[in-house]
Amino acid sequence: MMAVPSPSYSITLRVEAPTGPRTTTDIVAAVGATGAAVTGVDVVESTDSGMVVDVSCNAVDGAHVETISATLEAIDGVSVRQVSDATFLMHLGGKLEVRPKVNLRHRDDLSRAYTPGVARVCLAIAKKPEDARRLTIKRNTVAVVTDGTAVLGLGDIGPAAAMPVMEGKAALFKQFGGVDAWPVCLDTKDTEEIIMVVKAIAPGYGGINLEDISAPRCFEIERRLREELDIPVFHDDQHGTAIVVLAALINALRVVGKEIADVRIVVSGVGAAGSAIIHLLAGEGATNLIGFDRTGAVHAGREYVDEHRRWLAENTNPEGFAGSLKEGMAGADVFIGVSAAGILDGADIEAMNDGAIVFALANPDPEVDPIEAAQHAAVVATGRSDYPNQINNVLAFPGLFRGLLDAHATAISDATLRAAAVAIADTVADSERNPNYIVPSVFDPTVAEAVAKAVQDVARVERERAGHTVEPDIDAAAPQFSATVGG
Amino acid sequence: MMAVPSPSYSITLRVEAPTGPRTTTDIVAAVGATGAAVTGVDVVESTDSGMVVDVSCNAVDGAHVETISATLEAIDGVSVRQVSDATFLMHLGGKLEVRPKVNLRHRDDLSRAYTPGVARVCLAIAKKPEDARRLTIKRNTVAVVTDGTAVLGLGDIGPAAAMPVMEGKAALFKQFGGVDAWPVCLDTKDTEEIIMVVKAIAPGYGGINLEDISAPRCFEIERRLREELDIPVFHDDQHGTAIVVLAALINALRVVGKEIADVRIVVSGVGAAGSAIIHLLAGEGATNLIGFDRTGAVHAGREYVDEHRRWLAENTNPEGFAGSLKEGMAGADVFIGVSAAGILDGADIEAMNDGAIVFALANPDPEVDPIEAAQHAAVVATGRSDYPNQINNVLAFPGLFRGLLDAHATAISDATLRAAAVAIADTVADSERNPNYIVPSVFDPTVAEAVAKAVQDVARVERERAGHTVEPDIDAAAPQFSATVGG
Repeated sequence: MMAVPSPSYSITLRVEAPTGPRTTTDIVAAVGATGAAVTGVDVVESTDSGMVVDVSCNAVDGAHVETISATLEAIDGVSVRQVSDATFLMHLGGKLEVRPKVNLRHRDDLSRAYTPGVARVCLAIAKKPEDARRLTIKRNTVAVVTDGTAVLGLGDIGPAAAMPVMEGKAALFKQFGGVDAWPVCLDTKDTEEIIMVVKAIAPGYGGINLEDISAPRCFEIERRLREELDIPVFHDDQHGTAIVVLAALINALRVVGKEIADVRIVVSGVGAAGSAIIHLLAGEGATNLIGFDRTGAVHAGREYVDEHRRWLAENTNPEGFAGSLKEGMAGADVFIGVSAAGILDGADIEAMNDGAIVFALANPDPEVDPIEAAQHAAVVATGRSDYPNQINNVLAFPGLFRGLLDAHATAISDATLRAAAVAIADTVADSERNPNYIVPSVFDPTVAEAVAKAVQDVARVERERAGHTVEPDIDAAAPQFSATVGG
Repeated sequence: MMAVPSPSYSITLRVEAPTGPRTTTDIVAAVGATGAAVTGVDVVESTDSGMVVDVSCNAVDGAHVETISATLEAIDGVSVRQVSDATFLMHLGGKLEVRPKVNLRHRDDLSRAYTPGVARVCLAIAKKPEDARRLTIKRNTVAVVTDGTAVLGLGDIGPAAAMPVMEGKAALFKQFGGVDAWPVCLDTKDTEEIIMVVKAIAPGYGGINLEDISAPRCFEIERRLREELDIPVFHDDQHGTAIVVLAALINALRVVGKEIADVRIVVSGVGAAGSAIIHLLAGEGATNLIGFDRTGAVHAGREYVDEHRRWLAENTNPEGFAGSLKEGMAGADVFIGVSAAGILDGADIEAMNDGAIVFALANPDPEVDPIEAAQHAAVVATGRSDYPNQINNVLAFPGLFRGLLDAHATAISDATLRAAAVAIADTVADSERNPNYIVPSVFDPTVAEAVAKAVQDVARVERERAGHTVEPDIDAAAPQFSATVGG
């Protein structure tokens, strides 16, 4: 995989140069010659004695930016005054703001939104705590909680450095699901402290989205919070990924004409994402699943210290396959990688069954070069946006929480997760589905709506089955909060 | 003090009535006769067989609403279909939303605000943690933290029921100070747990506003967080009140022509607010301060268990006055009440010195009837919006945090609090100042600006004195985040 210039690394170089008929052409040509994609050139100043030119381009990485600068400086009379970076510019001051939904124009507004009128609203909630979902932001608000220990592929960078990711996530929640999400970046890595903090802040939220917390702590934190809180708790790295993988697999199997119950599925990586994927696929009817860690297949013939591998050994790999990942690829129908870059090559894909499905999701570099994989597999997907079939959690979490919040859900079942996956898969019409189009675009606005509807339907049925009726939202049903008095 | 109809209790009654030439007039007259202030009447439907009329009015309280309904029902052929309440309507769905400040219109936006571009921003913060103030919402965000134990005058109503107040506070922060504030309502009353939680969530915030946490826990929580965090920690019930009281006192003393060092100041109530007021006035030069609790004057001749009263006994009441509050009023120049309704009467105010200043701040009912007090005192202020001179914390906290955030302050000094008070006082021009106008309107937009500027000036001087230079905000100084490379 060749590194290519990316809009995620878009820079503007402000350059001083001698005035001349070929100045801008020379600058643009020099930048282009380094492999950068020039996106614009603007003359800021032009006098007899010299010019100031802004040249914008997409670069590959930091070293490439240095090369571009050095190349320009090497031109006679040219100097680079400064380099600005569109990604950093976009982050200045942060990516979120808190906005009042009420106007406070005069004394009457203030007396309703704040003292003394607000006291009546407080007392109503104290008397009937369920009304917090109607009368406060709890109705529509999700906490995006991390301790910064497993952020993107960057590892343990800490809570402050994790903020830009969580802010971005919150922006996606709003844009795609209309959900108000708030970043909660915790300055502790202690499992018990994290559990305690999330429980303590929970009154203000209708759901908890755990994010980028390293394994194995993420399992215990999620399990305990699910048990101890009465709002849905979701670990996106596990379940968000699993939903989108299942969605993609449903459509990939449709493309190759196979059934999930019949296929042999190899999963490389049994951490947070891999475990959740295996669980969800098993729930959807997959029978022949084999998980691989760095030492090879997880199988019943070995003893495992950790609970997750023990569960896998007992409940997957029915053939008791005990070989390496490369050995396991022979005769597999599906490969799902959530592990490490470049651990497989074209020959490994060639060894798979006909109509092979390859999801190489390690980021930023997949388990196998997707171009090479595509020479042998029927369907290839990655986590990257510059190849077809991007497995992106953005397809799942905004609609999922939209549905959970609207259903006043108190928990998330596996059936809910599977319904979300089916909804995503079904937004790709039969006529559209092909090897290069098994998941919808992240910008397709119908996806979150479809997911929300599917999730809401399941959540409502489950609550009714449990004997809880969902009170209709007064805000949804009628634009008035009223108490009927008298006759 | 007679209870009067209030816009904070504005209702609309939907009434069915027989069609007739006097129907609406009769309805309006009946509602008005109960003492309600009718604000509008709208015919929703009118046929030969009957009419539907919405009549809107300001009521006094819940019992009054019942009376209005019963009065209407007593009219022949009239029935009240429903009563809706403007204050509850305003709260439906909560009062805040989280809005992205960046557009995510297409793939390039996504690749900058989220993966993969965001990784560069994360790494920049991991490398240089101070940059969190530039590149995340920390720059402009304050946590409004409560455990719901001392909400308004309602007492311990819990975290969920406290949300409407904290949301209102956050709305005020934004409207008056441009500060993004977020409600953090904690499901724990344990001092150590609260301290731990606030420390854990601190990475995402540039300041902490503690709110409505009951004494004495609020003192320990504030003290510890001030020591252990590197962002400003402020308890609004204490210091916000103290700032506005000092501001009002500065102008009241100007009105009566007295100096703070010369006056005898009686403070009724030595809880969170009273203690903070006494500390701040002492810092501004008051020498003759006497605090009173339910048992009388706090003085050096008694033993006190709690630390705050002990400090007061040692550092205030230089005359060693040991009588009751009523006895202490004789010869006092200033009365400041943050205690309980109706504990004083006109005779107590009459016993004060000439040019007496009375701040009766108990809410909703003051320590003394302000109308009665005004017959004997030169200046009277309350916490209420329906009398002149409302002592309202909204005058202080938005501008205070605006200034602290802009100065990148790591703490709040007493000098900062006093500077805020002087700034508030000085927004009332010499020509405007009179006994009925010692504090500006909460809707005066110049107040927060003046407070912010004063606070910023003090905070910057203090940081420079401590040897820290405040790096200029790149966002404030220039619209670019840039790295200068090459020559």
